[in-house]
Amino acid sequence: MRKVAILGIGQTVIDEHWNRSLKELAGEASFAALADANRDAVQSIFVGNMLSGALGRQENVGVLVSDWIDIQSIEAIKVEAACGSGASAFRNALIAVASGEVDSALVIGVEKMTESLPVETTEALATAADADYEASQGLSFVALNALVMQRYMHVYGWKHTDFAPFSINAHSNALHNPYARLHFSISEKEYTQARMIAEPINLLDASPIGDGAAAVVLVPEDSIKQAARKLVIVTGSASATDTIAVHGRKDPLWLSAAEKSAHKAYLQAGLAPPDIDLFELHDAFSIMSALSLEACGFVEKGQAPRLANEGEILPTGKIPITTRGGLKARGHPVGATGVYQIVEVVQQLRGEAGISQVDNARIGMAQNIGGSGASIVTHILQTRLQ
Amino acid sequence: MRKVAILGIGQTVIDEHWNRSLKELAGEASFAALADANRDAVQSIFVGNMLSGALGRQENVGVLVSDWIDIQSIEAIKVEAACGSGASAFRNALIAVASGEVDSALVIGVEKMTESLPVETTEALATAADADYEASQGLSFVALNALVMQRYMHVYGWKHTDFAPFSINAHSNALHNPYARLHFSISEKEYTQARMIAEPINLLDASPIGDGAAAVVLVPEDSIKQAARKLVIVTGSASATDTIAVHGRKDPLWLSAAEKSAHKAYLQAGLAPPDIDLFELHDAFSIMSALSLEACGFVEKGQAPRLANEGEILPTGKIPITTRGGLKARGHPVGATGVYQIVEVVQQLRGEAGISQVDNARIGMAQNIGGSGASIVTHILQTRLQ
Repeated sequence: MRKVAILGIGQTVIDEHWNRSLKELAGEASFAALADANRDAVQSIFVGNMLSGALGRQENVGVLVSDWIDIQSIEAIKVEAACGSGASAFRNALIAVASGEVDSALVIGVEKMTESLPVETTEALATAADADYEASQGLSFVALNALVMQRYMHVYGWKHTDFAPFSINAHSNALHNPYARLHFSISEKEYTQARMIAEPINLLDASPIGDGAAAVVLVPEDSIKQAARKLVIVTGSASATDTIAVHGRKDPLWLSAAEKSAHKAYLQAGLAPPDIDLFELHDAFSIMSALSLEACGFVEKGQAPRLANEGEILPTGKIPITTRGGLKARGHPVGATGVYQIVEVVQQLRGEAGISQVDNARIGMAQNIGGSGASIVTHILQTRLQ
Repeated sequence: MRKVAILGIGQTVIDEHWNRSLKELAGEASFAALADANRDAVQSIFVGNMLSGALGRQENVGVLVSDWIDIQSIEAIKVEAACGSGASAFRNALIAVASGEVDSALVIGVEKMTESLPVETTEALATAADADYEASQGLSFVALNALVMQRYMHVYGWKHTDFAPFSINAHSNALHNPYARLHFSISEKEYTQARMIAEPINLLDASPIGDGAAAVVLVPEDSIKQAARKLVIVTGSASATDTIAVHGRKDPLWLSAAEKSAHKAYLQAGLAPPDIDLFELHDAFSIMSALSLEACGFVEKGQAPRLANEGEILPTGKIPITTRGGLKARGHPVGATGVYQIVEVVQQLRGEAGISQVDNARIGMAQNIGGSGASIVTHILQTRLQ
């Protein structure tokens, strides 16, 4: 298959965009990505979105967006894998371009979540879990993650405070990201004293929802002879699944789909965890940062809080994570998140990440999770050797 | 890219399955397709589904199904393109197998629609249209098609009775299809006198919704050296889009996305309309049968009712359509329909279509539509020359 380059990126600010519709957000990100790629058309459109039907009374968003941005396309579909929709859409577009089926693709992650009542949004988010055995029993998504975090602290002996560095780092990195939802730093004391949501998850362990869209333009690498700037190519792409319900797993503290998809992506790229310069992981809750780092081989099982407390997840550390704010502070417009992560890795590899730029970043990884670890997609991006 | 074979097919009866959940229906069709293919595993799962979130409070159905049928897969995603979800899922699976990204795929179309109140289902179906300019103005999906049919009759001078052969043929063909929802034949008098729904569309112009699932197993053709029976391969696959709202089109009576996708599929297969032995088209309403036949080149513009009245759409005619009952009588579980169509074409090409078998069927076409002609996917299937 052909190698694929990410030629353009675009994104909107994540916020409560009460005056802008889903298609307007998708359009803003799309036009930004097309302008960045210096193109005015693509052959196919893949939209990552989870909740347009439940919250926006609008399905068929592939065509909705292609019509809105006035691009007649071969393909205009929505890919849904709960909060992993964005990376799943990206991966399907990648296969379409790599295979030669199409010569260009626009991938858009978009979500509009804040016009509904909070209880409606919470209920809609719970559709990512098992409706029969989790959601219908009253388990909201945060409650599900709280059970996992509780168990992790019990098994490995960590205190709640030990997770503070994950949130502090995310907020610090988002400070100068103009597209982030939250622009304030937090202290360990603020983290510890934040309002409890579902014990032990408090407000500063949880990522905020939001409205937003991110987009990328994909083309075959060999179609770009002379790049105007550093060209980013995809060297690893893999997806894996686990049980949909957490209780179905042998070890609820091990993200086997993260392990499998990361392992496969490493193999494709010919790399190992120490080679990764930065990792945009799926920190919907701070416990998820810990589980992802462990499953992907960056630290031994049960030891991620130690890594975080040693400063190794900072932009200057061994494995910088959530370098633009992550889900925690950039925000988590669910179906859009996976595409935001790709956009941010591209920014880092191009050297456009501002104050949270990772020095000499050449290899970045992005990992997007649907459900509580049920489906996980991992991508490795690298700058092309000129 | 590699040629892809459809090795196994499976389906459930379409009905009001009040005692069976979405995943149980998906499982039944999947196990049938796997058994038919003589396989017990696949590498990837693509689910076509439109309404699980809105009506079933369950997203993430890719993983829901992979977990339920106990197949750990690389890919387990939902593809959504309104009523065209089934064929869109099939097409993405096809690209994944053809490209070599995976060596096998299970495509499942599944929908569960009858547990909700009829008004909820009608409202959910309207999410396929433009929420801003159609659905929110009170246009249900049947009303939208009624406007199109009204205009077609006005412009081309046909009477309502002239559409009778479409529905009579569909009901006649479904009589002996054990998976069909409706098992009764209708007369022209019954057609004409049926209860009005949205003038001029009456009850016998409209397809019934239903719960159901259909599935197919895809593998590379060259992996099958010696087929146990006639092997069906995919020789054309194309998708195209139009505006999402009907009012945005230059000619609301021309399905340009059907024309484009069919034209491209013909080119890929090296065929022309006269070569097609049967055509499973998207007869959600009888007017859609007419528009599809015209846009795909089987009859000149405005003349499809003549073709139907001359008996050319019967299993013995020039271009047999809805040979197993079509959406009209087999039933229309929206996101599943595109996969049912593929299954039925395979039955015809294998010579397993019973009393509605088309003689010497070697080449079949299936066309699935999302929205009112907004996104259209066309596939051409052929028996492999031994």
